[in-house]
Amino acid sequence: MAEWQTQRKSRDERLTAGSAFAKGKLVAPGDVTALLEAVIRPGDRVCLEGDNQKQADFLAACLAKADPGRLHDLHIVQSGIVLPEHIDLFEKGIAKKLDFSYSGPQGGAIARVLNAGKIELGAIHTYIELFARYFVDLTPHVALTVARAADRNGNLYMGPNTEDSPAVIEATAFKQGIVIAQVNELMDTLPRVDIPGDRIDYVIVTPKPFYVEPLFTRDPASITEMQILAAMMAIKGIYAEYGIKRLNHGIGYNTAAIELLLPTFAEKLGLKGKIATHWALNPHPTLIPAIESGWVKQIHSFGSEVGMDEYMRARPDIYFTGHDGSMSSNRMYCQVAGLYATDLFIGSTLQIDLQGNSSTVTADRIAGFGGAPNMGSDPHGRRHPSDPWLKAGSEANDGNPQLMRGRKLVVQLVESFSEKMVPVFVEKLDSLELASKLNLELAPVMIYGDDVTHIISEEGIANLLLCRTPEEREQAIRGIAGFTDVGRRRDRAMVEKLRERKIIQRPEDLGINPLDAQRGLLAAQSIRDLMHWSGNLYAPPSKFRNW
Amino acid sequence: MAEWQTQRKSRDERLTAGSAFAKGKLVAPGDVTALLEAVIRPGDRVCLEGDNQKQADFLAACLAKADPGRLHDLHIVQSGIVLPEHIDLFEKGIAKKLDFSYSGPQGGAIARVLNAGKIELGAIHTYIELFARYFVDLTPHVALTVARAADRNGNLYMGPNTEDSPAVIEATAFKQGIVIAQVNELMDTLPRVDIPGDRIDYVIVTPKPFYVEPLFTRDPASITEMQILAAMMAIKGIYAEYGIKRLNHGIGYNTAAIELLLPTFAEKLGLKGKIATHWALNPHPTLIPAIESGWVKQIHSFGSEVGMDEYMRARPDIYFTGHDGSMSSNRMYCQVAGLYATDLFIGSTLQIDLQGNSSTVTADRIAGFGGAPNMGSDPHGRRHPSDPWLKAGSEANDGNPQLMRGRKLVVQLVESFSEKMVPVFVEKLDSLELASKLNLELAPVMIYGDDVTHIISEEGIANLLLCRTPEEREQAIRGIAGFTDVGRRRDRAMVEKLRERKIIQRPEDLGINPLDAQRGLLAAQSIRDLMHWSGNLYAPPSKFRNW
Repeated sequence: MAEWQTQRKSRDERLTAGSAFAKGKLVAPGDVTALLEAVIRPGDRVCLEGDNQKQADFLAACLAKADPGRLHDLHIVQSGIVLPEHIDLFEKGIAKKLDFSYSGPQGGAIARVLNAGKIELGAIHTYIELFARYFVDLTPHVALTVARAADRNGNLYMGPNTEDSPAVIEATAFKQGIVIAQVNELMDTLPRVDIPGDRIDYVIVTPKPFYVEPLFTRDPASITEMQILAAMMAIKGIYAEYGIKRLNHGIGYNTAAIELLLPTFAEKLGLKGKIATHWALNPHPTLIPAIESGWVKQIHSFGSEVGMDEYMRARPDIYFTGHDGSMSSNRMYCQVAGLYATDLFIGSTLQIDLQGNSSTVTADRIAGFGGAPNMGSDPHGRRHPSDPWLKAGSEANDGNPQLMRGRKLVVQLVESFSEKMVPVFVEKLDSLELASKLNLELAPVMIYGDDVTHIISEEGIANLLLCRTPEEREQAIRGIAGFTDVGRRRDRAMVEKLRERKIIQRPEDLGINPLDAQRGLLAAQSIRDLMHWSGNLYAPPSKFRNW
Repeated sequence: MAEWQTQRKSRDERLTAGSAFAKGKLVAPGDVTALLEAVIRPGDRVCLEGDNQKQADFLAACLAKADPGRLHDLHIVQSGIVLPEHIDLFEKGIAKKLDFSYSGPQGGAIARVLNAGKIELGAIHTYIELFARYFVDLTPHVALTVARAADRNGNLYMGPNTEDSPAVIEATAFKQGIVIAQVNELMDTLPRVDIPGDRIDYVIVTPKPFYVEPLFTRDPASITEMQILAAMMAIKGIYAEYGIKRLNHGIGYNTAAIELLLPTFAEKLGLKGKIATHWALNPHPTLIPAIESGWVKQIHSFGSEVGMDEYMRARPDIYFTGHDGSMSSNRMYCQVAGLYATDLFIGSTLQIDLQGNSSTVTADRIAGFGGAPNMGSDPHGRRHPSDPWLKAGSEANDGNPQLMRGRKLVVQLVESFSEKMVPVFVEKLDSLELASKLNLELAPVMIYGDDVTHIISEEGIANLLLCRTPEEREQAIRGIAGFTDVGRRRDRAMVEKLRERKIIQRPEDLGINPLDAQRGLLAAQSIRDLMHWSGNLYAPPSKFRNW
């Protein structure tokens, strides 16, 4: 009998060891490192949330203080490697193996520690791919999660910051793992229950609220006229052309420009209600003017954004909110929504090659791609038609019309040279070099060229759906690559032919005068403007306030 | 202010109207039709669970009794259209529009009612595609769900039958919809909480337990020697060849044969621990012998299966189970696991064409494809390597080796003629005809040929990854199509060349003697055998008992 209960037995032993440090489910902050040493075993798979935005920072600091003699060779399985403490785990030998999705600020540190041989890299996943493996071959033995509040039974209230937690906790708790939650406060009655208490083993009330990264705030003041021009082309040449209602945007100044042009440029084109109504999107402050102008019907979010709580609470028709009034996010569900229920993904990249393969990986940074590989892919399992999807499919199709399928629109929005005047269009991605240097089985490609349908630069739009040969595709890309080497090596005659076939469209082909791309077109030109648009419900984090 | 709270206001009005029929959250069974008439509005999107297996049957019957004068033009958005009452809604004019995934026994009725103009068909989705749309453009106004038990606060216990409910309820409750649950019993303290009570508005204790469809039970007594032969080829020619550890199987006698050959045929080949260790799979009774023989490490399930409760409770090392001891399923999570965290999907089909496109749709039945389009697709967003995935990718790749990607193995397991001697291999899918007859925008294709990597018939295995031209692909398929017209029209010389290149492999090429394909090879030959293997923990439903 016992041979089928080894996980349950191990769990019971861990709970017994941990009980020395707990009163009921409650553990004092000063006892947390000892608790972790008691309930974690060397070699365990551990998820130390570690999301895109919210961080179990107190638990991370406590784990990093553990004795590497007791806790070593941990296998870290979490979406975000964002805090210095995440890196410390590897430097100190507490952790050895790593499977993750996104590193942001720690991209350089990961590359450094990897080169020093202190990280055994599993893979860099797209978010829901990692969550998927939680249920198959990367189930955590221990999950260290984070919530706004708990009650004495361990029920958790997360409010807007649910993010990865439901998936992480379900996989861990139902496979006899240990779940430990840090919370900002203990309450007698929670505003709502996001995670049932019987999934939670220990609760720690931390001295400070958990850290949240304001990842999705872009200051309109930093949007350039070149970005405005590209955004105008995206709206007129793609959103209007295909009738895109359901979409996900990346976070960048160029997509922020699109959001801020909806109530102005797009409104003048008569597009209200016809495009950009249903979103899978984090609560971007730059979308506030479009929401207030009645453009947006509904938004489901992966996570939250600092300063947006009261605004979202006041706009329940737009956001998913609980009966307590606060917003609810869920990265697993929203990524599935972005994969299967949107018609367009638009994002940026640092490099793009002649086949349209893109990557944000550079030789000295391993940053991960987060959700982009998922949402920037054409899901072959999709079976529901929509007008944009069918139109894209018909442009791509040159086979049996009876077997015609649709296509997801996957758009790369770039400037031919990045900020530091580094060319974005390249003959070969840097990540290929990194792959051979680090002996990776797979080159870090963010979105593969065969999923990309359009590339927009300041020079125009390349429609890759209409290309019929690899040569046409290459020249379509060269034809919008500006003054980069890639752009200057174009075949001018062929590019002109592609333009006649509308595979390349210049601003003037779209009836857009580049001189009209002025900052005055933006519905808000500063963070302060956004705050005013929101009726002062949006409370910008201090680092975005200059007043 | 009010303009941003229309959904909340509507919800409050509905709750006020419903309160006439409720004491706290509890509603008497006899009041349910009146409750539904009070809280549902004409034109509402309604999810009447309607899962693959568990059914909110009492709520379905009550809704079907509603007055079409009060409740009409409902838009039904649910995965399963399985009960006669689901069809009644359309016949009576209570419902008008339909978006669904799977109909099983009602496939014929849907076709009939559709032809009569009483159903406005949205689309036939793969499961998680429909769930994805719950968060974007098909959010239910009302969800009618079903659980094993509730407490007075509306907390729900679902035990093994969680299935679609978490996704349905989250989308509905957080967008100010109404959630009504039928339960088998009211308890003071639940064994565990699967859904927090603050998401549930009304609870009905039904006179009878809810209906569950035993969809995943196959009697080993019905497995034929031809299916055993195909299963032997799958194990030796694909599972062993690629080293498949993480997988999903369809439910059919041929995949049941694979399960039952693991402890016998595969064990003799020395494959234990090398293949079929981690599963995204419903709790198939035919997998019991492999579990008991130590083949299986872990199973995550979409839903449950009738009769398996006590067996799963006794095997928590294998199944995901709660601290109360009962199994936990989740269709959304498990479908994501099947998409992104498995290396192989293997399933059957009724028809397959010369490009490898497959469909189970016939001219007079609209059955839907459930999870097959999702799990039978190559996810372009996947970024983690595995040996099987890389091997399949290298076979398919003829481009830049530095940009080599892996491929998911998608295998169709068929017999050249189906039970009624209808050929499975066809020049043209019947579903194309149905599509033009019904004027569908999209022909109902289960899995598109470009995602299929292998087809297995009793004549051999066709490896489509190795085909380099459409002609080779066509002849590879003809070459295993047996005595069907498609098979007889093969180019014999080309087929022999394909065999030399191992694109086609016959049983003898794999070292398999068809005469060895005997029923004696099956680890269990009857339902009774399965029960014995389980130590009598498996309790087969009465329809499978002949003793």
